[in-house]
Amino acid sequence: MGDPCGIGPEVVLKALTSQRIGNEADFVILGSERILRDVAENLVLNVKIHSLRRNSGFSKMVEGVADGINVLDLDNVSGWDTFSRKPLPECGRASVEYIQEAINLAMGNRIDAMVTAPVSKEAIKMPGYEFTGHTELLKEMTSTKNVVMMMVGGKLRVAFVTTHLAIKDITHFINQENVFSTLKITETGLKKFFHLERPRIAVCALNPHCGDGGRFGTEESEFIVPAIKQAQEVGIDCKGPISADMVFNQAIHGDFDVVVVHYHDQGTIPIKLCAFESGVNITLGIPFIRTSPTHGTAFDIAGKGIANPGSMIEAIRMAMTMTNEAVNLNP
Amino acid sequence: MGDPCGIGPEVVLKALTSQRIGNEADFVILGSERILRDVAENLVLNVKIHSLRRNSGFSKMVEGVADGINVLDLDNVSGWDTFSRKPLPECGRASVEYIQEAINLAMGNRIDAMVTAPVSKEAIKMPGYEFTGHTELLKEMTSTKNVVMMMVGGKLRVAFVTTHLAIKDITHFINQENVFSTLKITETGLKKFFHLERPRIAVCALNPHCGDGGRFGTEESEFIVPAIKQAQEVGIDCKGPISADMVFNQAIHGDFDVVVVHYHDQGTIPIKLCAFESGVNITLGIPFIRTSPTHGTAFDIAGKGIANPGSMIEAIRMAMTMTNEAVNLNP
Repeated sequence: MGDPCGIGPEVVLKALTSQRIGNEADFVILGSERILRDVAENLVLNVKIHSLRRNSGFSKMVEGVADGINVLDLDNVSGWDTFSRKPLPECGRASVEYIQEAINLAMGNRIDAMVTAPVSKEAIKMPGYEFTGHTELLKEMTSTKNVVMMMVGGKLRVAFVTTHLAIKDITHFINQENVFSTLKITETGLKKFFHLERPRIAVCALNPHCGDGGRFGTEESEFIVPAIKQAQEVGIDCKGPISADMVFNQAIHGDFDVVVVHYHDQGTIPIKLCAFESGVNITLGIPFIRTSPTHGTAFDIAGKGIANPGSMIEAIRMAMTMTNEAVNLNP
Repeated sequence: MGDPCGIGPEVVLKALTSQRIGNEADFVILGSERILRDVAENLVLNVKIHSLRRNSGFSKMVEGVADGINVLDLDNVSGWDTFSRKPLPECGRASVEYIQEAINLAMGNRIDAMVTAPVSKEAIKMPGYEFTGHTELLKEMTSTKNVVMMMVGGKLRVAFVTTHLAIKDITHFINQENVFSTLKITETGLKKFFHLERPRIAVCALNPHCGDGGRFGTEESEFIVPAIKQAQEVGIDCKGPISADMVFNQAIHGDFDVVVVHYHDQGTIPIKLCAFESGVNITLGIPFIRTSPTHGTAFDIAGKGIANPGSMIEAIRMAMTMTNEAVNLNP
């Protein structure tokens, strides 16, 4: 459900009652029954909300759950003030506990996929957690060495070599190992969850005009080209580097299944332009399926009933598709 | 006409014979009559090509020029091999001389606007020129202290604080003075040539999530916010920093007239997505109007007759519009 003060509860409820989701899967919200009831009432949603008890022995989580909305109430936001639409320490802690519980359920094979709602980094840091993002927490809690953030929007998929870094620090993390590892995890993920036998991967350049022969940076020749060659040698279908002002158009026109980009804005700019309200974030490399909408807590509009559930709906649909498409691959 | 070996001659001829340009202005190509005749023949274009002599005394360049295509032949590519579609020293030198001649004509008020066709940096460097780009040459030859590259595509305008730099070097050029100067020149340009009384300017963040309070970079608080305040104090309508994954959608939806970005790919990615075949490059800050298409020489398709003149047509139309809209402003 994400941060209780943000638009998470609202977009989750709107999404789960939307016709675009339907009844093709069983859903459980990790959150607070009371808050969800408040939000449902506010939205005048005619929906039954059932509370499941923690450790209540549901196997594969929720087989046979009742119709309506099922909530696993972690009972951790007792003192929450409905009218506070800002970062609060209690809500920061609750947000982390929802994620931790979902990871435990997924690792225990009790759920097939996990969809996260937006959290507030500021709120999470208030009770003293270290937190950079969902992706980093998932990596840590699942003891995964390398994970890849992938975004899907419209006709475009992008996978990131780095994510939350200052522009001045990016180049410290662009090396052959990181680029290769991103290519490998991206290829495996697309094979496993997207029914692509041999995904066609484009590798974006880091510098303008691919560095123009070394005049605007040497990372292309030093790291990116060697990583592409290394990947090609193990059978990965990848091409590049292709300059950033060309590659996204090529991908949208169907030349590639995914574009590997090197830093946050290089991938988020095209995704948001292709799908402002319907982008989806996917974590590849972890042992289970995890998706999320691409927007934040949006405290400024929380509680007003005007949050657009488009991205959450797409995130849930993506998790359902990935679950259905998932094939067993040799590790 | 740009590099004789590239697609410049072809897109110029296609554009000037296109119905989208028509007869609302007088045009002169700086180039080679022989090459343009060859290209016209290849394209089976039924067009008269007239050669004007250099220093032939045309005033305001070409009042009363003949119908058809007018060429000012600089007679500088005598040994050119029609079948060479690659960087050649002779063509590099010729490309620079076309630009230099056009700048002289513009500075002498003999033409109203200058549209440049693509050149090859590699070819230009062969005979020993220092050359980073048109923008830099224009800045130097017009003794302009600060120029701004602006791109227009679809509903989006972007103006650049920096252009051709390696990612690792960008932050060395982001300071209050450069950001402010970009805001000032952009505002003046939009007032002067785009009939906007008070242009609404968005300033993009440099770092992801605007640096997230300093966690991913401090340039926002150190330089960008102070530059925005400085600009607001002199009456410029500017807002920001706004994160790169938000600001372009806001601009496209009409919230802003232009987005100031900090580096090459931050602006070219959205422009190419909004207008892959029809983007236009504009140099602001110099004493005359200069536009160009956003594509390169495309040696790989030159001579095949398949080059798309869309961007050149838009560049010419933009120059015509800017000429008509131009208003005198106090310096």
